[in-house]
Amino acid sequence: MTDLTLTFLGTGAGAPSLTRNVSGLGLQWVQRGALWLFDAGEGTQQQILRSPLKMGRLEHVFISHLHGDHVFGLPGLLATRSAAQGAATPVTVWGPPGLEEWLRLTLRLSGTGLVYPLAAHAVSEGLLWEDDAREVWCRRLAHRIPSYGYLVREKPRTGTFDAARAYALGLPPGPLFGRLKAGESVTLPSGRVVSGLDLVGPARPGRSVAICGDTAPTPAAAALAADADVLVHEATFSSEHQERAAQSGHSTAAQAARVAQEAGVGTLILTHFSPRYESGAPPGLDALLAEARAIFPNTLLAHDLWTHEV
Amino acid sequence: MTDLTLTFLGTGAGAPSLTRNVSGLGLQWVQRGALWLFDAGEGTQQQILRSPLKMGRLEHVFISHLHGDHVFGLPGLLATRSAAQGAATPVTVWGPPGLEEWLRLTLRLSGTGLVYPLAAHAVSEGLLWEDDAREVWCRRLAHRIPSYGYLVREKPRTGTFDAARAYALGLPPGPLFGRLKAGESVTLPSGRVVSGLDLVGPARPGRSVAICGDTAPTPAAAALAADADVLVHEATFSSEHQERAAQSGHSTAAQAARVAQEAGVGTLILTHFSPRYESGAPPGLDALLAEARAIFPNTLLAHDLWTHEV
Repeated sequence: MTDLTLTFLGTGAGAPSLTRNVSGLGLQWVQRGALWLFDAGEGTQQQILRSPLKMGRLEHVFISHLHGDHVFGLPGLLATRSAAQGAATPVTVWGPPGLEEWLRLTLRLSGTGLVYPLAAHAVSEGLLWEDDAREVWCRRLAHRIPSYGYLVREKPRTGTFDAARAYALGLPPGPLFGRLKAGESVTLPSGRVVSGLDLVGPARPGRSVAICGDTAPTPAAAALAADADVLVHEATFSSEHQERAAQSGHSTAAQAARVAQEAGVGTLILTHFSPRYESGAPPGLDALLAEARAIFPNTLLAHDLWTHEV
Repeated sequence: MTDLTLTFLGTGAGAPSLTRNVSGLGLQWVQRGALWLFDAGEGTQQQILRSPLKMGRLEHVFISHLHGDHVFGLPGLLATRSAAQGAATPVTVWGPPGLEEWLRLTLRLSGTGLVYPLAAHAVSEGLLWEDDAREVWCRRLAHRIPSYGYLVREKPRTGTFDAARAYALGLPPGPLFGRLKAGESVTLPSGRVVSGLDLVGPARPGRSVAICGDTAPTPAAAALAADADVLVHEATFSSEHQERAAQSGHSTAAQAARVAQEAGVGTLILTHFSPRYESGAPPGLDALLAEARAIFPNTLLAHDLWTHEV
């Protein structure tokens, strides 16, 4: 059963439009009730209100870079989570150097006290965080200012315990099952030794999602996303505007598709579209999708408030 | 003809809801094409997109106080006006001490360059600004942190020139009309002296609008708004929650109505409502309106994207 979802809160580049807000993306483990955010442009909290996501569940916020359309919604979101929602669980914010200084000054000058613990960390390349089930890796990408991509990878999950076979072997349910599930061997009253390894299926690989904010095409993105189930990559421009993309440190849809191809990911999701592709004049977003699929067929275009199951 | 309008961009207190954004209010001289903003909570630029207001016309932004729901939308709005809209005309931001420091740091850390000149000034009580037609006055109000109210007052406008009477007197149109309109006396070839004062009607009083952000009821608000055509005043709570209002430095609808009564304004517009009054449980917003009208009958409740003609 899939319980890991990506909910796109804002999929436009630079400035909001009537159809696309600025960047924000929720990664949710539905059953655990855990929400992580990737970027928080202005209006992210308003988009969360319109989505199934709950700010009370928020655990981590990962900011790609400090351009306003990726970060100006962060203080308001943190303030609302406290004052209006009274959420008590801690939140950790990760981002480029300077983020913590700005956030602390902003909360102080605005008289914003938080009722939950807030930690903020400047990121650098490598393993950022892990618990028993998940880890987060970080790579520096290629933009006009420091910009970071994040890889969320679940650790391999224990295989399925074959309870029917355990019953057939005459094993009594109870604490013994727990030891067998953990892979231990147990000796039955008959003297027979049963190994849990024979009753537990092979470990299931964890799922992985790579999320790259603003960046020109870079081998670092492909390295970060290697073999990921999903790569979320910016595609601000079409190939027709490749020069403009290069000048501004952005990617075309075709360039993002080559990154996905090189990384060997399962699915590529494009986002962060320049408003020019919705003006009605060609090339439109269809052109971005077509040029990406010509290189990497399993490509999708994100839109605001769309939820994708990983 | 009325060409002075108030457009409410956000009318909720503290945090956005699905029906009310946080504080923002546009004052527009439609014929001059001039827009002034009072407060800019997060999402103000998105609300402007949904309204008839044009950010390119923006001249002044007046911030009442530094709580996030009144100011977190300012950097994004200024950035979008530059990068996405390319507006070249200058903008002046007015607000409490600390605003400029926060704004400059935010623009610097986010790498936001503006293509238009931006000035920022800390306000204090008294006359803030004037040109030949308008003046802006400022008073300190009563909130948990420094909070300021603003009065925009048009200077008296020249009376109407009675062209029909001038023709009847045999006066030739042309430069002479201009001198008469300015109130000068002219001597006709016949030797007769005609005073412009006889041809120009009485000066018409300018219009005035007082805008009070977050505040407990205070004589300063009534003094600021004395004889104003319109007073926009917060009414976060109903009288049933008067104690809560006092604790948090806010006003009830009845308290706002007493300020309007004392000031002798023409119209009172209430805004900045706690989300609790839209929960469906009584008291609702009807109760706020009723308690205000019992004291000051010409009271209106603001809602998002509503335009009121002054």
